[in-house]
Amino acid sequence: MQQIKAYGAINKDADLKEMTITRRDLNDNDVSIDILYCGVCHSDIHAKNNDWGNAKYPIVPGHEIVGRVLEVGNKVATYKKGDLVGVGCMVDSCQTCSACQDDLEQFCENGMTGTYNGKDRIGGAESDHTFGGYSTSITVREEFVLTIPENLDLKAAAPLLCAGITTFSPLNHWKVKKGDKVGVVGLGGLGHMGIKFAAAMGAETIMITTSPSKAGDAKRLGASGVLISNNAQEMKEHHASFDFILNTVPVKHDINPYLNLLKRDATMCMVGAIEPLEPMHGGSLILGRKRVAGSLIGGIKETQQMLDFCGDNNIVCDVEMISIEEINQAYKRVQENDVNYRFVIDMKSLKN
Amino acid sequence: MQQIKAYGAINKDADLKEMTITRRDLNDNDVSIDILYCGVCHSDIHAKNNDWGNAKYPIVPGHEIVGRVLEVGNKVATYKKGDLVGVGCMVDSCQTCSACQDDLEQFCENGMTGTYNGKDRIGGAESDHTFGGYSTSITVREEFVLTIPENLDLKAAAPLLCAGITTFSPLNHWKVKKGDKVGVVGLGGLGHMGIKFAAAMGAETIMITTSPSKAGDAKRLGASGVLISNNAQEMKEHHASFDFILNTVPVKHDINPYLNLLKRDATMCMVGAIEPLEPMHGGSLILGRKRVAGSLIGGIKETQQMLDFCGDNNIVCDVEMISIEEINQAYKRVQENDVNYRFVIDMKSLKN
Repeated sequence: MQQIKAYGAINKDADLKEMTITRRDLNDNDVSIDILYCGVCHSDIHAKNNDWGNAKYPIVPGHEIVGRVLEVGNKVATYKKGDLVGVGCMVDSCQTCSACQDDLEQFCENGMTGTYNGKDRIGGAESDHTFGGYSTSITVREEFVLTIPENLDLKAAAPLLCAGITTFSPLNHWKVKKGDKVGVVGLGGLGHMGIKFAAAMGAETIMITTSPSKAGDAKRLGASGVLISNNAQEMKEHHASFDFILNTVPVKHDINPYLNLLKRDATMCMVGAIEPLEPMHGGSLILGRKRVAGSLIGGIKETQQMLDFCGDNNIVCDVEMISIEEINQAYKRVQENDVNYRFVIDMKSLKN
Repeated sequence: MQQIKAYGAINKDADLKEMTITRRDLNDNDVSIDILYCGVCHSDIHAKNNDWGNAKYPIVPGHEIVGRVLEVGNKVATYKKGDLVGVGCMVDSCQTCSACQDDLEQFCENGMTGTYNGKDRIGGAESDHTFGGYSTSITVREEFVLTIPENLDLKAAAPLLCAGITTFSPLNHWKVKKGDKVGVVGLGGLGHMGIKFAAAMGAETIMITTSPSKAGDAKRLGASGVLISNNAQEMKEHHASFDFILNTVPVKHDINPYLNLLKRDATMCMVGAIEPLEPMHGGSLILGRKRVAGSLIGGIKETQQMLDFCGDNNIVCDVEMISIEEINQAYKRVQENDVNYRFVIDMKSLKN
């Protein structure tokens, strides 16, 4: 067991502050990682604030982790000291259920282990729940470690581990392809990656937003057009024309206007709003045989596929760098949607 | 132009009563049909009452029509006098748009022509809107006439033209197959056909209902089990176990408990409720990558496929026969869910 520095909260009302946590000693199939950067996901804030009712304190958030391998266990074959690696939202799962067998560990029937706030399956540290990436190092079983392509800007690659896979997976699963007309609803940490991925896949990518002020940025990110969703005339012009819509809005909203934008047999996939939506009209689905679906991050295999796709297409996130001391202020700004588009903590600031 | 007897309403508050309407003279590709039986669909009542705001009066409902060919136009190749035929919810469409080309005339981009209350594309009758099957005869272009297998009980086959295709199409489209666990929510005109079809396709078919009193009938219809949806323990036992759910509930309701019954990546298809539902929770879809979809009747090609399937498997609807004079009373009973499971009008009663 080793003691390391971390940043966490002791209860839901407390600010995050420096604390000491323990990591287990290296097992045979473990990889120990020196954390260089960690992204700040809105989920970190929900978890810290116990918005989902399952927080365990102290809580050390962070599941968009990139770093270099410090040391590997005796049986680790894939990684060696010095490799650039990443860790996303999961650090463990049962590995035996049908979801795990299908490379969809996020849906592990016995419960995947979250990178933080998860019930530790392995043991060997003081806490029985996991601590995330707001820390100097992390020890993770080999199966949940990812390879980061060397050509990517490392600090901007960190949010790929959550924001990236959350948006790549549905575009990949629903087979978005060259020439498709794809809408991305919401331009935040998720939406800005949705635009980059859909455009890189060759889709005609339309940013769907209530804010005309976002048009310029959407186009810079790769959108070929912007649809202002509270403009009735524009919505009419785009009626029944989309092959796929990725809905990244993280809060309760009315999805009916977006369903009306779908072609017959087309799908809108929800990735943001884990809460009750405004009432959906049955006719929005029945008239046109449409579908609304959901998607949750992605499995480890698909996360590696996403990272390789980013390496091939030189895709990273747009980030604002902060030091660990700025994390509480950053949380406030995330809650006010005041970030372009993801905060990333430079973990050097915790190591001094 | 020929005058025939029909039963219709002159405004939304009027009872249906006998009236005279006109049908066009036979065109080259028309089929004239002597109507033997016509089913009573809940939509007939919604339309008559102008619940959807688009009623045209006088309105002559009826889109579950079976009868025998009286006469065919010069260019009709498929049908001849005396053939047993049916007409469903549509009598025309543009025949050129992508939906029509894909054999999905119900989604015709230029608007399909409803069997009643539709804007007539052909002309030659007094009214510019169509009149349905509560009448002695109907004249329909060949492309919208269906063949009724001779082995079926004719009067019980009538509701196949709407209730049948509405439930067959989603089971067929989402490829329900032998061994699948399929739930059917709601046991009415649609639900009772959903059970028959799913069972005939080889699925383990579970009736999902709030009414324990329906268990016996559900099993008689082919269900292998009944799940009482307001029994928390039963719902827990069936959690995440269904490959497909057909939701036939015709009114606003909470779909979240049913979504929780779906396996990962599985679909619930809505066919009944063309109105706003209770708020759906985003997590119901996101956690398990689930889908909720809609389906509207079916195209002509698939409707014939359904009728052939019924012929092969000897499937018809459970019906209560009425005379045309009983139609207003029947409407009241439908609205009180007091029918097992579909009223069918014996059209002899209008011909005397």
